Amino acid sequence: MKDQEKHAGAVSNLVDQLCRLPGVGRKSAERLAFHLLRVPESEAYALADAIRRIRSDVHYCKACFNLCEDELCSICQDPQRDQTRLCVVEQPRDLMSLEQSQAFSGVYHVLLGRIAPLDGIGPDQLTIEPLVDRVRTGNFVEVIMATNPTVEGDGTALYLSNQLAEYPVQLTRLARGITAGSVLEYANREMIADALTGRQAL
Amino acid sequence: MKDQEKHAGAVSNLVDQLCRLPGVGRKSAERLAFHLLRVPESEAYALADAIRRIRSDVHYCKACFNLCEDELCSICQDPQRDQTRLCVVEQPRDLMSLEQSQAFSGVYHVLLGRIAPLDGIGPDQLTIEPLVDRVRTGNFVEVIMATNPTVEGDGTALYLSNQLAEYPVQLTRLARGITAGSVLEYANREMIADALTGRQAL
Repeated sequence: MKDQEKHAGAVSNLVDQLCRLPGVGRKSAERLAFHLLRVPESEAYALADAIRRIRSDVHYCKACFNLCEDELCSICQDPQRDQTRLCVVEQPRDLMSLEQSQAFSGVYHVLLGRIAPLDGIGPDQLTIEPLVDRVRTGNFVEVIMATNPTVEGDGTALYLSNQLAEYPVQLTRLARGITAGSVLEYANREMIADALTGRQAL
Repeated sequence: MKDQEKHAGAVSNLVDQLCRLPGVGRKSAERLAFHLLRVPESEAYALADAIRRIRSDVHYCKACFNLCEDELCSICQDPQRDQTRLCVVEQPRDLMSLEQSQAFSGVYHVLLGRIAPLDGIGPDQLTIEPLVDRVRTGNFVEVIMATNPTVEGDGTALYLSNQLAEYPVQLTRLARGITAGSVLEYANREMIADALTGRQAL
């Protein structure tokens, strides 16, 4: 800590705070701090305000638990979206990835996590109850499980499909197989097995 | 921009601000933004405040132009430091590197840049006048040029040595040669040449 004492408190304080960010080590934090000292004052203040605002203004959509600043998120408010197809994702950022693909025009439900017994996360900590309510009271014809293709994501999808089995909706999950642009030579065993199991008619 | 419209304005605003940081692309910025949404609110606010404070509280030391929050930086205020040896560096972060080595007990002078005609930076934009004043009025016996070992850093050191030639101080520069822990096999020509030119008696 000797080296930090030589520095202005505000600088080493900012370096400490930046170090807490994921993927930011001490050297990067110092570089960022010196960058923020060098840019126009307004730019540094804009970043500080943006951080404050993300915590003061952003909350979860009352319907789908996506991030938003109003009661409902822009997707739930959009009359153009297909209100009969519901896509279930783990996190708002998964929703963002799906939106970027522009391949889905329905609405979403964000679980805000996945069932992970080893991390002490059970179904009660997720937004599963509101999801079941939506499916019971809504006019959905299909619920797409778009949880991550991991043990915990798959387990969560399985749990949800049991919870939703009694309702007259079609339950689907994202296709698995080889990825566009990849080469078979480097595909691993699970990818090949998924691709064979789910093979499609030409 | 389609994907961003789907997001709360505060989130995409923060992502935009984070993208302006050096080494932070859009994906990293999104990851950081979601991290800041997840951490305790106090931690996000602490980062925002730290950024504000680095601009509102930090300024340059009146004597050496290091960063500080008082009139004088902690090094200039320290009565233990050798006031007869002055080390000239380009930037506050260079000073920090030298301090971390704990090999220098004198005081510093920060130029706040280097002479770089191609970038339009001349001697007048640096703190050279205050440096010459300090050397003229101080009791220094040695001035160490610790500018970077680059064309511009060397040029700046040469310019300074001309400016300071009339004063009764010894002018030195940092030693150059092979680096501790390196292997000769991978040293480049300049390193070997510097090491041979500056060879020391055993």
